[in-house]
Amino acid sequence: MSGPAPAVILVRPQLGVNIGACARAMLNFGLTDLRLVAPRDGWPNADAGPAASGADIVLEQAQVFDSVAAACAGLSLVFATTVRNRELTRRVVTPLQAASEFHGLPQQGGLMFGPERTGLETEDLAVAHAIVTIPVNPAFGSLNLAQAVLVTAYEWARQGSDQADAVLVNHDGPAPHEELEGLIAAVDEQLARNGYYNPVPGRAAAARLTMRNLFTRPEFSAGEVRTLRGIVRGLSKPRREG
Amino acid sequence: MSGPAPAVILVRPQLGVNIGACARAMLNFGLTDLRLVAPRDGWPNADAGPAASGADIVLEQAQVFDSVAAACAGLSLVFATTVRNRELTRRVVTPLQAASEFHGLPQQGGLMFGPERTGLETEDLAVAHAIVTIPVNPAFGSLNLAQAVLVTAYEWARQGSDQADAVLVNHDGPAPHEELEGLIAAVDEQLARNGYYNPVPGRAAAARLTMRNLFTRPEFSAGEVRTLRGIVRGLSKPRREG
Repeated sequence: MSGPAPAVILVRPQLGVNIGACARAMLNFGLTDLRLVAPRDGWPNADAGPAASGADIVLEQAQVFDSVAAACAGLSLVFATTVRNRELTRRVVTPLQAASEFHGLPQQGGLMFGPERTGLETEDLAVAHAIVTIPVNPAFGSLNLAQAVLVTAYEWARQGSDQADAVLVNHDGPAPHEELEGLIAAVDEQLARNGYYNPVPGRAAAARLTMRNLFTRPEFSAGEVRTLRGIVRGLSKPRREG
Repeated sequence: MSGPAPAVILVRPQLGVNIGACARAMLNFGLTDLRLVAPRDGWPNADAGPAASGADIVLEQAQVFDSVAAACAGLSLVFATTVRNRELTRRVVTPLQAASEFHGLPQQGGLMFGPERTGLETEDLAVAHAIVTIPVNPAFGSLNLAQAVLVTAYEWARQGSDQADAVLVNHDGPAPHEELEGLIAAVDEQLARNGYYNPVPGRAAAARLTMRNLFTRPEFSAGEVRTLRGIVRGLSKPRREG
């Protein structure tokens, strides 16, 4: 039942040494799919190799994307690693629970990590289905990027092939991310066409984010996404006759 | 029943930066008792502080010993972290099992780690009750000292935590049912008006049920239901001016 090892998505990583250290952390626990979103210093980065300590294969196969949504293409359940966010409604799970859910899915999932200093922005988090928070000491939370990758990767490896408890019955996992994006784009286009978005500056962006959240959090399956696209069409215009 | 957090015993550590990184890894998961056996470059070490990233309390309280046995004084169960050793007969456990045993003891236990390059000698291991081996990728095992500390400390903290594995944040509970029904009715009405439901007998009922499921499962809050009603209106018709 367990799908391939989850992808690691580094969003706007700053230092090559940290990217290398993440590759090293990943490969220790069998993760090899590294996805970089807009790395600050471009890619490849000469500082990454030495920090990878031999995990060159991960760096060589790394893919670069210019948006978080593009980096999530082909992935099912995506968790964002962060402290709590005040703006989004999302499940917040432990690394144990996240790994358990990955093992319960036949498709590949993803783990998203933010830039070293600032962490993920709300717009990045909005692309993820849920949040994973590492239970650090409330009085001293100071994990670097590679350490956060290490702990989540360790949990995935530790749970190995052990069958996880089902978290959602009769559900074949979240749709591939590009299908969800297609749905969101279709809703967005129709709403824009109908003048739904308030023209007050800044309000349209907030409304779009709210809309995206509503369609992302439920972890709709591929079939559900297709049904929703039909509903969106159905709401938008009369069915053409035969 | 659970005793104090286990001590971390670094045997002949070489680099100050690694000692600092270990202190940082420890404090993230609530471990504060650092014991150094014959650190190569003496103690204190100016390189340790910056690498500790604020975990200064651990460095300040660190104790120095000249033998492994002396460093283990006052501790109950001691695990040595290493790959397997061919000369000693010892139990070999996972980090999960080691942490579980610590939590089952009223006394303080210890985790022993060897020098960066060479690892623990047989004479060091002989002082430990058992061996803990981190289950790394057989094809790529490359954890540095602080990473090994991090994983074992994480396991101890995780098992001691009563944190739920999953919660939903920024969510004020599902909407009152009549509000959800109002949303479903609005969608239904607009879909019916636009001829979305297939006129084949029985199919309309199935489509209605599918639609209802999609809007019920996510447990939308009252605010989300209002937003969705706005989206449904937005999809259905152009905004009225004025």
